[in-house]
Amino acid sequence: MTKKILIDCDPGVDDALAIALAHGSPDLDVVGLTSVGGNVELERTTNNALSLAEFYGMDVPVARGAGIPLVREQRKASDVHGSEGLGNTVLPAPKGSVLDRHAVDVIVDTLAAAPGEVSLVAVGPLTNIALALRKEPRIVEWAAEFVVMGGSYTRGNNTPAAEFNIAADPEAAAVVFGAAWHPVMIGLDVTLRARASAQVRDRFAEFGRLESELLTPSLDFYGSNRQYRDEGPAVHDVCAVAYVIDPSLFTTVPARVDVETGGRFTSGMTVTDFEDGSGEHNAVVATGLVQDAFWDLVVDSFRCVASGMDEPTSH
Amino acid sequence: MTKKILIDCDPGVDDALAIALAHGSPDLDVVGLTSVGGNVELERTTNNALSLAEFYGMDVPVARGAGIPLVREQRKASDVHGSEGLGNTVLPAPKGSVLDRHAVDVIVDTLAAAPGEVSLVAVGPLTNIALALRKEPRIVEWAAEFVVMGGSYTRGNNTPAAEFNIAADPEAAAVVFGAAWHPVMIGLDVTLRARASAQVRDRFAEFGRLESELLTPSLDFYGSNRQYRDEGPAVHDVCAVAYVIDPSLFTTVPARVDVETGGRFTSGMTVTDFEDGSGEHNAVVATGLVQDAFWDLVVDSFRCVASGMDEPTSH
Amino acid sequence: MTKKILIDCDPGVDDALAIALAHGSPDLDVVGLTSVGGNVELERTTNNALSLAEFYGMDVPVARGAGIPLVREQRKASDVHGSEGLGNTVLPAPKGSVLDRHAVDVIVDTLAAAPGEVSLVAVGPLTNIALALRKEPRIVEWAAEFVVMGGSYTRGNNTPAAEFNIAADPEAAAVVFGAAWHPVMIGLDVTLRARASAQVRDRFAEFGRLESELLTPSLDFYGSNRQYRDEGPAVHDVCAVAYVIDPSLFTTVPARVDVETGGRFTSGMTVTDFEDGSGEHNAVVATGLVQDAFWDLVVDSFRCVASGMDEPTSH
Amino acid sequence: MTKKILIDCDPGVDDALAIALAHGSPDLDVVGLTSVGGNVELERTTNNALSLAEFYGMDVPVARGAGIPLVREQRKASDVHGSEGLGNTVLPAPKGSVLDRHAVDVIVDTLAAAPGEVSLVAVGPLTNIALALRKEPRIVEWAAEFVVMGGSYTRGNNTPAAEFNIAADPEAAAVVFGAAWHPVMIGLDVTLRARASAQVRDRFAEFGRLESELLTPSLDFYGSNRQYRDEGPAVHDVCAVAYVIDPSLFTTVPARVDVETGGRFTSGMTVTDFEDGSGEHNAVVATGLVQDAFWDLVVDSFRCVASGMDEPTSH
Repeated sequence: MTKKILIDCDPGVDDALAIALAHGSPDLDVVGLTSVGGNVELERTTNNALSLAEFYGMDVPVARGAGIPLVREQRKASDVHGSEGLGNTVLPAPKGSVLDRHAVDVIVDTLAAAPGEVSLVAVGPLTNIALALRKEPRIVEWAAEFVVMGGSYTRGNNTPAAEFNIAADPEAAAVVFGAAWHPVMIGLDVTLRARASAQVRDRFAEFGRLESELLTPSLDFYGSNRQYRDEGPAVHDVCAVAYVIDPSLFTTVPARVDVETGGRFTSGMTVTDFEDGSGEHNAVVATGLVQDAFWDLVVDSFRCVASGMDEPTSH
Repeated sequence: MTKKILIDCDPGVDDALAIALAHGSPDLDVVGLTSVGGNVELERTTNNALSLAEFYGMDVPVARGAGIPLVREQRKASDVHGSEGLGNTVLPAPKGSVLDRHAVDVIVDTLAAAPGEVSLVAVGPLTNIALALRKEPRIVEWAAEFVVMGGSYTRGNNTPAAEFNIAADPEAAAVVFGAAWHPVMIGLDVTLRARASAQVRDRFAEFGRLESELLTPSLDFYGSNRQYRDEGPAVHDVCAVAYVIDPSLFTTVPARVDVETGGRFTSGMTVTDFEDGSGEHNAVVATGLVQDAFWDLVVDSFRCVASGMDEPTSH
Repeated sequence: MTKKILIDCDPGVDDALAIALAHGSPDLDVVGLTSVGGNVELERTTNNALSLAEFYGMDVPVARGAGIPLVREQRKASDVHGSEGLGNTVLPAPKGSVLDRHAVDVIVDTLAAAPGEVSLVAVGPLTNIALALRKEPRIVEWAAEFVVMGGSYTRGNNTPAAEFNIAADPEAAAVVFGAAWHPVMIGLDVTLRARASAQVRDRFAEFGRLESELLTPSLDFYGSNRQYRDEGPAVHDVCAVAYVIDPSLFTTVPARVDVETGGRFTSGMTVTDFEDGSGEHNAVVATGLVQDAFWDLVVDSFRCVASGMDEPTSH
Repeated sequence: MTKKILIDCDPGVDDALAIALAHGSPDLDVVGLTSVGGNVELERTTNNALSLAEFYGMDVPVARGAGIPLVREQRKASDVHGSEGLGNTVLPAPKGSVLDRHAVDVIVDTLAAAPGEVSLVAVGPLTNIALALRKEPRIVEWAAEFVVMGGSYTRGNNTPAAEFNIAADPEAAAVVFGAAWHPVMIGLDVTLRARASAQVRDRFAEFGRLESELLTPSLDFYGSNRQYRDEGPAVHDVCAVAYVIDPSLFTTVPARVDVETGGRFTSGMTVTDFEDGSGEHNAVVATGLVQDAFWDLVVDSFRCVASGMDEPTSH
């Protein structure tokens, strides 16, 4: 039986791959994409979400969300994802358009319409999710599960202490981790092990336009960031979707996660206590990844996407 | 010509009087009441808004808003307003019901429907307004003006540094004062001069049920708080509505207002710089009140409310 | 009977006048001057303390103290006091030199040598006092009283929230107000009422070199600051010494004073709670000043200083 | 040629072993022990330092230092070290007594007396060192090197974010890392690899009273803490002394270390940036330890201590 999945994202190279995994997986039914400002600005992430859906041949509603963080000012990561957000990828302008409803309402209504059936996955800053929680606290009960790519229990990437998605909107993250739904935190601790190495990328060679027009130009740019050095870029967001498909790919541990909003050097850190004496675990934290099985899953799903894509009209 | 006014409130004794002023004023047309958690819990503030509208004989939509602050946990003021929020007042249970739309959407849609025509007034914690700003940043342009009862440029009442409405949701206040609409801040500096003294209350004696069923029982309770001592209770929220009716009742000064969200002892303080060298004033701050004219305005409006109220069905 | 007084200072125009008051008062015996970085840099404040002592004809040990705040970086007020610290005053280079002991040790040893006999007065940033408290906690018991010029229970002068001496070293102030000696806080609330107006300054005319070489050039510069406008400059530090001479010049109230060290806009604020429910007052806060009697005291003492000063050697 | 070493400590089990290493090493001349409140209270750490010096047969001055942190309130670790600080060890009451000078003055004067010759090592909270820096900033130039056991660039032990010594006095640590002497940070990242395993402890068997009266009772207690599980307790402080003897036991990397003092969940974290774009490295951070050579060094030194200890007087 397929699981319904709603993806809140800020494409973004690894967002693009996460959407591909979700679309290509026979186990998932993507019921919506909602955009948030993050890696690049909202207009670009929204447009990218639309373009990607059309490029992959998805029939999915796309809704525009929040452009700036819940409380503080915006920080972007266009150095990592390129000014357009997808590295060197150039997708056609989208033909369709976004819903005439705000992402927050789409999230609330989608979860309300099928309580216990939809997996909510967030792979960008958590602004939309926090706004949805404040507008309709019952989404905590309605979501079948909530999986977030973000945070770290060791070191950050945006700062020494904080991962980008959380650092970009710490107050939103504090709201999200403070809600009673035990988020699954897929943080840098595992996503940095999901590297699109040369060997992995060899397996993409057979994927036609998916490879030549998206995977290669986006990963070439993304992987050129010095943080990734020789091992290939980490496909962070892909891990969160993979968790929804097959949680057994991950080792997880219940923990107490508090988001720092007040520090001078630590704002956006996900302070993770595995031995919280009070027993008040509020999250499930991924600590391990079965790398081979993960890539098998990704490659199989990408193959499905590739085979289902329209050939471009010949001239 | 009448001004349209939308009141975001958490009734609350002084909220009740503010609504009466707005309803009774020939210069205002109340186009909506939106509720927020604050003085007492959201269910009570919402119910009180409905009951008050019926009691006053208003035909106005009422919408339920946010029950908890934008980021942090809730603090209430039921010691000041009574557990039900209106002191010793006992109003009949409302016959009508709230709109099937969230306050945030009512705020956005009401302002969008008549750009430049609606005065937005907030007399509770600023959670709804902040959520509305994040969902639809253009309300900054659509609101004819934005007036907030809250803050202080000297001392607080909830803490030595912070006024209750701001202290109750500092992050929301930071969002609201950070937006580009130059809020008019009606703070304790002026509202503490708007005292319902014995002489003032004598003028309410002629107002029938308005006096006996609402003004007296609510103000008796409210005024018993030791902070008010002999001078009578301060009707904070009434000042914000009075400003919309007649700004000339107030002295105002442009200033830079920053909301402290990080302090250990100062969270929720409206740090007000009248001489900001950078010239970046982001607010208009009330510094003086013409007390006699203020009470004349209030008494005249209450008289209109009193005269328009239905006599209760005799048995 | 005279009281012994030890003055920790950062001269500074008003420090200079405070030292003159202490020296000229028949009720005080100045047993030491300790310097701290503040209004201007430590080398200047130390040198100024030496020069002033010689100019006034004082026989008093001077010790150099801490040059930078306890934890954070330095902020100065040379715009108010001039680059040399004494406005347009030009005193001769001092002939004597500072003690070969650190101010912190002088403070500790002076108090230890005469427990219960020495009034400690701080009119600069509280760095030395905090260091002394950490080195020898018993000074809390040894000091006959501790009076600090600093803070405010309404608004600041260095920032909208904080007075300069506290803002300059908030952590030191937190240490000092956290110690169990109930500091007397002489804050802006009263010191801004101690204005060296034209009428006051007329009374200085008879004071010879004290007037012509110190009072006039320092107050002319100091009073030109736009914060003082027409009323004349506030002689903040003088108030703290006046309190030691005659506490009856002041109205005081016990209160809870917490120093904010964590705020983004409120660092260095003395958050003052007069109605602390817990009853845990940790300070005595001045709320009123008898201005005429204050200036009578100052004028009388300055007269003593003037009459005791050496005439400069004629050539 | 031997290096002079001054050890600021809060014994503490691992402090006791660190002192033994320093005393037993032919390469070091211990010129002073200064005590600070930390693992247990100041009176105990001071007494323990004295007792240990006598037990080991050291002829070394011991000075009492600061009992409470620079700014905030005290936190202790007596659960880890036992209420007396040395686990189950019972040493005789010391016959000697501490110097009649404060640790801060001993630190300053010892460094001043031999500029460039004394290695300063801190293995407790950094209160004394911060006070010394504020009293005499030139110690930065006078210390031959400054090595601190404290901090972590990954996770903490006192909280998920902070190591105990830094968490115990974050402001002092901020002062210390803010000074211009490039501290060598020996943090949990390496000290958790220095485990007194069963194999290691077997090598202590030959050490007579040192083993039976100190090493075994202290390590038995210390190692029973659940954080250490099966691998044996980490002898944190020993690493800092080992670094002074032989830096080649460690891999080190220059880095920017900022101490968080403001966070809600991260206070006392040593935020470590290895790739600080500004190039403003302010510390040298240990990242690796050659474990076998480390233990060889420790065992050899302990042997020297054991052989030099007096036999107890027989009765």
